[in-house]
Amino acid sequence: MPLPEKALIARIRESGQRYEGAVKVGIGDDCAVLRLAPKHEMLVTTDFTLEGIHFRRPWHGPEVVGRRCLTRGLSDIAAMGGEPSAALLSLALPRDLPQKWVDGFMKGLLSLASEFKVPLAGGDIAESPNGIFADIIVLGSVPKGKAILRSGAKASDRIYVTGELGGSSAALEALLAGEKIRPKQFPRHFHPVPRIVLGRFLRQRGLASAMIDLSDGLSTDLAHLCEESGVGAEIQADALPLAQVGEHAGKVGLRNALHGGEDYELLFTASSDSQVPRRIAGVPVTLIGRVRRERHVLLKQNRRPPSELRPQGWQHFAR
Amino acid sequence: MPLPEKALIARIRESGQRYEGAVKVGIGDDCAVLRLAPKHEMLVTTDFTLEGIHFRRPWHGPEVVGRRCLTRGLSDIAAMGGEPSAALLSLALPRDLPQKWVDGFMKGLLSLASEFKVPLAGGDIAESPNGIFADIIVLGSVPKGKAILRSGAKASDRIYVTGELGGSSAALEALLAGEKIRPKQFPRHFHPVPRIVLGRFLRQRGLASAMIDLSDGLSTDLAHLCEESGVGAEIQADALPLAQVGEHAGKVGLRNALHGGEDYELLFTASSDSQVPRRIAGVPVTLIGRVRRERHVLLKQNRRPPSELRPQGWQHFAR
Repeated sequence: MPLPEKALIARIRESGQRYEGAVKVGIGDDCAVLRLAPKHEMLVTTDFTLEGIHFRRPWHGPEVVGRRCLTRGLSDIAAMGGEPSAALLSLALPRDLPQKWVDGFMKGLLSLASEFKVPLAGGDIAESPNGIFADIIVLGSVPKGKAILRSGAKASDRIYVTGELGGSSAALEALLAGEKIRPKQFPRHFHPVPRIVLGRFLRQRGLASAMIDLSDGLSTDLAHLCEESGVGAEIQADALPLAQVGEHAGKVGLRNALHGGEDYELLFTASSDSQVPRRIAGVPVTLIGRVRRERHVLLKQNRRPPSELRPQGWQHFAR
Repeated sequence: MPLPEKALIARIRESGQRYEGAVKVGIGDDCAVLRLAPKHEMLVTTDFTLEGIHFRRPWHGPEVVGRRCLTRGLSDIAAMGGEPSAALLSLALPRDLPQKWVDGFMKGLLSLASEFKVPLAGGDIAESPNGIFADIIVLGSVPKGKAILRSGAKASDRIYVTGELGGSSAALEALLAGEKIRPKQFPRHFHPVPRIVLGRFLRQRGLASAMIDLSDGLSTDLAHLCEESGVGAEIQADALPLAQVGEHAGKVGLRNALHGGEDYELLFTASSDSQVPRRIAGVPVTLIGRVRRERHVLLKQNRRPPSELRPQGWQHFAR
């Protein structure tokens, strides 16, 4: 192996032992062995983090890359209303990668893992012929039959989002334009917090009929939810909670909120007679539209006739 | 997405539906949802398959790459004595990759999946800036406390391997030397069969005290097993079952059997009073040595004094 594999494995192993939780056997065997509480089901998700596609080294420090890598998986668990149980990390690293980069990456990833008490239970390490490739696998659990699926939305349900939209893509646009930006002014891009607490709340209260996380952008992720539920939707443009970013905390454009990816907020539907709080665990929850029987998605902007909202979700910055 | 992502997802979805098994929710949601039989634990493993590291397109047809990709994960499940439940596949593909390659890869992978009735329950698809990157995640199950770990070997246990050793690395050496070889004459390299049936047999009969699969080569994998068990070992060189490969079915060299990787056979230990069959499910099982209290590994070659066997496992062909 090209890298100080042993040191890396020791670090991962230590993390696995800190919060054992569901992990019965972690690093050091052919498989991780996980316990599952009685009457629960297991959730599994896997997400790539690829250099040149999901991040660029000059723009994203290693801690940011590590944090965002795990966020992608935890956000999927949140979108099912699940509790994270363990993560596995596969890392392919170029031979000439400085050890400092790997240390920073692990620091960012393990710091987020510790916020949610998620042990690293295993993974794979390989030499990459070209660029940094990571794949994060997150396992979670949910009481039997209680996972909040994409497929449960019903006509006349209301549509909500958590937090603010468009902040992450606004950061990327600024970076692509060559602007110098401060990570602190774009927190959803550089320091995302997966909405585990909100997802759990919605599941425990039985509030959400369907849910998805906003990783590819509202227009694309809403289309996924509608497709799985066999419904359409109507979105009110002026209801969208536009992220405030940058030096002057200006609001992002509507385009960012509609199509910008990687906000890792939750998009969910709830029956019109449900009492959905306006704020959950300190995070605003905003009503943005309603589910329709007709299977396309409409965008209403005041005074204009409604237009069709096609999925134009942001496909990372490769294109 | 660069590729006919929808067609790929449709194919994966179809595979998921064919053998539902443990999968309650597959492709099309944020996470896969898996059931676990009562009184069982879940096994999870993840393994990279990287172009230029684990395969080369001129040498390995897409079906071979797909089959070997899933073999890596299933072999880890076999090494715990587990039953495979589901797989997730993350694929990063270069934009100019011919569709035919992807079709062949999926054909090889799904053909092996169908042999063991393993549904594909999810994954991730991304554009790769450089080369083909796959990560296979395999989930399995085992009755509580019955997983066969690497850590259970005791001094004076006997050491066994399944099948033949060195056949896979012999194929690679021939390829590296520029020889034209016939895949049929190197079946463990081009058409590996994960030892699920043998692993299950050993677990059900309670025969193995410790087990690992031979992915990195005997010397390296035996060192892992010894390290986890806190023991050493003594191996009889002339007991090793040398693979017979090539046009004239000649035996591979001792070096291939000791250090060659990717045979995906099982290495296990068993108490000296256990009755280990010489053949399980048609596959030979060979006694190759014994566990010692002293923590190093010795190699005995007839007439010579025993020498220390250091891990020199084959590190893929990148180096």
